Amino acid sequence: MGKGRLEAFSDGVFAIAITLLVLEITVPHLEEPGDLGQALLDLWPSYIAYATSFLTIGIMWINHHSVFRQLGEVDHRFLFINLGLLMCISFVPFPTTLLADYAWGGDGTSAALAYGITLTITAIFFNLLWRYAAWNNRLIHPNADPREVSGISRAYLPGPFMYALATLVALLSAEASAALFLAIAAFYVGSSSFFGDEQAGF
Amino acid sequence: MGKGRLEAFSDGVFAIAITLLVLEITVPHLEEPGDLGQALLDLWPSYIAYATSFLTIGIMWINHHSVFRQLGEVDHRFLFINLGLLMCISFVPFPTTLLADYAWGGDGTSAALAYGITLTITAIFFNLLWRYAAWNNRLIHPNADPREVSGISRAYLPGPFMYALATLVALLSAEASAALFLAIAAFYVGSSSFFGDEQAGF
Amino acid sequence: MGKGRLEAFSDGVFAIAITLLVLEITVPHLEEPGDLGQALLDLWPSYIAYATSFLTIGIMWINHHSVFRQLGEVDHRFLFINLGLLMCISFVPFPTTLLADYAWGGDGTSAALAYGITLTITAIFFNLLWRYAAWNNRLIHPNADPREVSGISRAYLPGPFMYALATLVALLSAEASAALFLAIAAFYVGSSSFFGDEQAGF
Amino acid sequence: MGKGRLEAFSDGVFAIAITLLVLEITVPHLEEPGDLGQALLDLWPSYIAYATSFLTIGIMWINHHSVFRQLGEVDHRFLFINLGLLMCISFVPFPTTLLADYAWGGDGTSAALAYGITLTITAIFFNLLWRYAAWNNRLIHPNADPREVSGISRAYLPGPFMYALATLVALLSAEASAALFLAIAAFYVGSSSFFGDEQAGF
Repeated sequence: MGKGRLEAFSDGVFAIAITLLVLEITVPHLEEPGDLGQALLDLWPSYIAYATSFLTIGIMWINHHSVFRQLGEVDHRFLFINLGLLMCISFVPFPTTLLADYAWGGDGTSAALAYGITLTITAIFFNLLWRYAAWNNRLIHPNADPREVSGISRAYLPGPFMYALATLVALLSAEASAALFLAIAAFYVGSSSFFGDEQAGF
Repeated sequence: MGKGRLEAFSDGVFAIAITLLVLEITVPHLEEPGDLGQALLDLWPSYIAYATSFLTIGIMWINHHSVFRQLGEVDHRFLFINLGLLMCISFVPFPTTLLADYAWGGDGTSAALAYGITLTITAIFFNLLWRYAAWNNRLIHPNADPREVSGISRAYLPGPFMYALATLVALLSAEASAALFLAIAAFYVGSSSFFGDEQAGF
Repeated sequence: MGKGRLEAFSDGVFAIAITLLVLEITVPHLEEPGDLGQALLDLWPSYIAYATSFLTIGIMWINHHSVFRQLGEVDHRFLFINLGLLMCISFVPFPTTLLADYAWGGDGTSAALAYGITLTITAIFFNLLWRYAAWNNRLIHPNADPREVSGISRAYLPGPFMYALATLVALLSAEASAALFLAIAAFYVGSSSFFGDEQAGF
Repeated sequence: MGKGRLEAFSDGVFAIAITLLVLEITVPHLEEPGDLGQALLDLWPSYIAYATSFLTIGIMWINHHSVFRQLGEVDHRFLFINLGLLMCISFVPFPTTLLADYAWGGDGTSAALAYGITLTITAIFFNLLWRYAAWNNRLIHPNADPREVSGISRAYLPGPFMYALATLVALLSAEASAALFLAIAAFYVGSSSFFGDEQAGF
């Protein structure tokens, strides 16, 4: 299988998962007229969860593209690691809803844990995907720049640890954990925009 | 990253967001048989909201394509401005439901404000995207026609102001505001069809 | 705008609309355990509505492709007629749910009318799209086969009338009308499979 | 119609169906705060059903690609067999929800039967698709390797029987049947990863 079709299929799954996030935001059903404005303001956790997951999936899509640019070919194991990664990405809308509905309340810890565990596993799959391809240049394109390849290897390493840490923070404070997930995404966007550091990765 | 993949991913998000709009229209649950015809007629605000958002997203897709046709390359900041724009486009189904469910009732102002603020921010991101690319021809293709480039710059300028104005009208009348959002889309379709004015933009 | 991107975007909308149809089928919520088998059998109108709409949208996608194969270029009016067609295609999941939930009951006529009116308008847009392109060979590719072009013109003509007729039958019997919508799709699949008559169209 | 567009459209339907699976997992509505952790653990049948269907559709996508790689052209009958296959793939989210909600309970047999019948019919369509194309090399590319073609024919044959068997097991035990569906997918991933046996198929 050429890498082109695999990339197109993966792009489709990324695009759909990112667009389904909006279904997480529930339209308020008002008890009585006149309360819509307040009800919409009270939905702020949904907007934050939406933005956090949208940026996170968007960044992962950019990184997925960086990985594929270095590839010369793909094999069956790579295909299935990629399927595992897509299974995580597709799953994100569910813990996003949990985060939106429960992170700022009595069940915040469970919600932030569910969200964080999902992103941590996703980041692990991301590293698996890259390290499987890069190991002894197994699937790397002959013309790939070795410095770029080792740069990606270095840049993707901290991702799982950062997410695992933000997940553990949920045991102390769900709000702090949720804020960290947004901060990780915002930090990536910021550093990548200002320094053009495209390997700053997950 | 080549502009081709970015455009394909963006097209996917546009196509999915525009198709998810139909989920906004709730199938009536009847108290007793025989009322379906009336219930379907009573859903007219949903049909109007559907058409308004469908045309608006469709026009923005056409404009997005006009922007990309002028580009020679993309950089990381452009990538993230585009991600911000897609985050707005993907969000549109939510305020569309608000508009459909509440614009013609006691909560109309809040609903129309939510819808209008979303479209205004979207139009601002659209201008940001274009102006970032066009500033000193930063990302413009060397062979691009300078008159076409400055034509787009002129044409996209009024968009945020038109939407902001239609949003402010919601403070006086939600119905008038909703009608203006549809009128803006219809005006664009009309002028663009009859004068072939493809830069008449948002 | 090249016809390639417009076709890819349209394909996306067709693919999403056809796949969203499954959301119409509601998972039964049982009063008491042990009734699931019967509840699933009682959903037969949903399965029929699903198959009818899936085949109808699938056939329209095939015909849409036949139209685009004859085109040399597209213009802005064509773009907006195509947007109108996509607006109808995207809308189909809603009347499909109406058909599934109400066609075999006291509100059958309203449901079948809603379904039929949607398909009739869709078929009208399809004819508009083609006739706008084919009029004086406005957008037809210079190398297109004139016999094929006039064959499509002839083949698409009956579509709106067939759907309008099946819609009117709903005034007499909603079940007969629903059966006709399925029969039209099955007839097209059959005739097109056995005679290779690819212009047998809507 | 070229096989390229048909493959792109099919890829779209596969990608959307696989991503819609997450909507099957219902966010718990808690009676009282503090129970979210337990409620999320109690959703384990949903996670298993999600993984089973995700892997199964993913594998079918890989196999679909193997089929298309051997093709030189497509005809109308092939087009409609493919449409039938996509109709099955798109349907999978519905029985997946049934499996998740009912397989481990009093209605398990009905749920597992519904799931198994869907996969069995899908596997039959898959065989129809391939055998229609491969019969007397009807649609096979002139340069295709005959050994690869007959390898696919052999490999796809057991699929319907395996699924039918796992479906029949539901009459004895729904849980065993559900476990078999996951085992079939896991077996394929495993054998295909370790032996590179890309024709091990459905």
